[in-house]
Amino acid sequence: MVAISPDNDGHSYIRSGAAGGGNSADIKAARRARFEKVFDQIAEELLAYVKGEGMPKDAVEWYQKVLYHNTPGGKLNRGMSVVDTVEILKGRDLNEEEYVKAAILGWCVELSVTRRGQPCWYKMPNVGNIAINDAFMLEAAIYYLLKKHFRSEKYYVDLMELFLETTFQTELGQLVDLITAPEDHVDLNKFSLEKHHLIVVYKTAFYSFYLPVALAMRMSGIEDKDAYDLAVKILIPLGEYFQVQDDYLDCYGKPEHIGKIGTDILDNKCSWNVNTALAYATPEQRKILDENYGRKDSACEARVKELFSQAPISIPQRFEKYEKDSYEKLNTLIGEVDEEKTGLKKEVFKSFLAKVYKRSK
Amino acid sequence: MVAISPDNDGHSYIRSGAAGGGNSADIKAARRARFEKVFDQIAEELLAYVKGEGMPKDAVEWYQKVLYHNTPGGKLNRGMSVVDTVEILKGRDLNEEEYVKAAILGWCVELSVTRRGQPCWYKMPNVGNIAINDAFMLEAAIYYLLKKHFRSEKYYVDLMELFLETTFQTELGQLVDLITAPEDHVDLNKFSLEKHHLIVVYKTAFYSFYLPVALAMRMSGIEDKDAYDLAVKILIPLGEYFQVQDDYLDCYGKPEHIGKIGTDILDNKCSWNVNTALAYATPEQRKILDENYGRKDSACEARVKELFSQAPISIPQRFEKYEKDSYEKLNTLIGEVDEEKTGLKKEVFKSFLAKVYKRSK
Repeated sequence: MVAISPDNDGHSYIRSGAAGGGNSADIKAARRARFEKVFDQIAEELLAYVKGEGMPKDAVEWYQKVLYHNTPGGKLNRGMSVVDTVEILKGRDLNEEEYVKAAILGWCVELSVTRRGQPCWYKMPNVGNIAINDAFMLEAAIYYLLKKHFRSEKYYVDLMELFLETTFQTELGQLVDLITAPEDHVDLNKFSLEKHHLIVVYKTAFYSFYLPVALAMRMSGIEDKDAYDLAVKILIPLGEYFQVQDDYLDCYGKPEHIGKIGTDILDNKCSWNVNTALAYATPEQRKILDENYGRKDSACEARVKELFSQAPISIPQRFEKYEKDSYEKLNTLIGEVDEEKTGLKKEVFKSFLAKVYKRSK
Repeated sequence: MVAISPDNDGHSYIRSGAAGGGNSADIKAARRARFEKVFDQIAEELLAYVKGEGMPKDAVEWYQKVLYHNTPGGKLNRGMSVVDTVEILKGRDLNEEEYVKAAILGWCVELSVTRRGQPCWYKMPNVGNIAINDAFMLEAAIYYLLKKHFRSEKYYVDLMELFLETTFQTELGQLVDLITAPEDHVDLNKFSLEKHHLIVVYKTAFYSFYLPVALAMRMSGIEDKDAYDLAVKILIPLGEYFQVQDDYLDCYGKPEHIGKIGTDILDNKCSWNVNTALAYATPEQRKILDENYGRKDSACEARVKELFSQAPISIPQRFEKYEKDSYEKLNTLIGEVDEEKTGLKKEVFKSFLAKVYKRSK
């Protein structure tokens, strides 16, 4: 398997244009630095608002910590893909004002990512339950920023609805996930590939893939409803493919590539691996799954891992086929995009697919 | 002190008009029943959406429980005040369509009330951390309903902004409250009447008093910014007065009137009582407060209660004066409302003030 980095996407105008001579890693760092600089502006604006409302110093400082602890960091792929997509749709470099607006939308996507609370924030000293209110305050920031920067645009209400509706969809996916796969109660009868499909589409695909592109489409003046429907038609299966990979890599990826040691088996996660295993397991294998999946025990985990690779479950072979089929199906869908009619560009979807296809991290 | 029930407001068009002959309690019950019927419609619409998205049966049933457990019940004053205010502003009974729309806005206020989670929901079996996602899903319902019922109104975006901005303000108030008065760490140096003012205004006054009226104003076609500023000018101090009463009644109200036994002293609440006590305590009294306030101990609580009534703290006398001054100040502000110029009616504010003044529950 060839490792293609998520950022080796071959479409950045910054790389191919303005920043001309630099090497790939430098350019990547510069793109990220430019995007991160906009976060400082955003944080300043939000803190100025909070100060302006007369909030005491400790509250302002708290909000600053919440913003910086929960938002920047990570791969920022979702946020930066808004900027990338606007560039592709406009077919040129953005001027400073356009760049900042696209980046603000990108940061709003990142804020929406973190609104359900980062793993560690609520565990920090003196945070605890305040983290729930903090999560709401990160979400509130999105709409404050939209109003401040987009109030006079005719697509302002479309941006608001996009965030509000995607948020609802993500929460629905989260609900199904939470009641299907509670960490402390294993019941594999609740699992199925259909349930997995639903969780992945609602919890991940809409906000990670459709939302950034739809925001960029609004900013680029696309109004035709068919264009948005077409974007859904391509980006939702693309997001599902991405998440299936994510599940696969949790078990089969190299920790030094994925940057963590997978714990899906230990944590009773409703992942593609276990649902595929359930679909193909013999009665004997099913019994082993029931007895070992989702137990906080590394021997049980090892037993499940072993099973995943055994016939007729054969996860690696099934994943290889799934990946090949997804890639072909997505390429066909992308090939059918009518750029003239929709105002879309095939390159938007191609660049996403290139970032995802056969990634190892 | 004369007890005036919050619902003896003397302005209901339903009571004075259509429902003519009935007695006050019957009419009150009928008004509530009519309002509650709209909730059934709302819940049905939300569940139809969720079903339509293909969510599994257990997820739909879960959301139904979340909606019914967290939303109806309680006094519903905030929600029903939207309907009352639209009636006053229009100066006539509402037709069925108008009634339903006003009631939907009222229920959206109630949904925003509960979005931080009801005291008992997260303690129910198998709920726990899912309650956080549930709280977000109650908030999401607001914007789903606004889109469904108000998308074609020219004030649609104003309604969205009203909810989004009030939510942010409420969260700011909640943050200041949480970091000023954590239940498990008493530090009275963080308290002050100024801090109390800030918490009360942001956490309560905006969403309980300004929001319902501002929504009704939008529905009644009022667009003039000055009219909204004037509503803030009256309703924020009115909301503050309401909350000061609430704090006072927690200690001095009769449990059979207020429907609960107050626990503010035990819980280290940043209430009007303790902040007033801190402002007037002698050094000896302050020492007693430091040693006894916010301790989970009924002997400490009794010691604080005793102190509250002693000179120069004298909470009951100071509250009586505060109430008298507030009432006069608010009456003056209401008297100055220019109905012609703003499209407002003095009766809107008078009816709120009548519900609040000298209430005992």
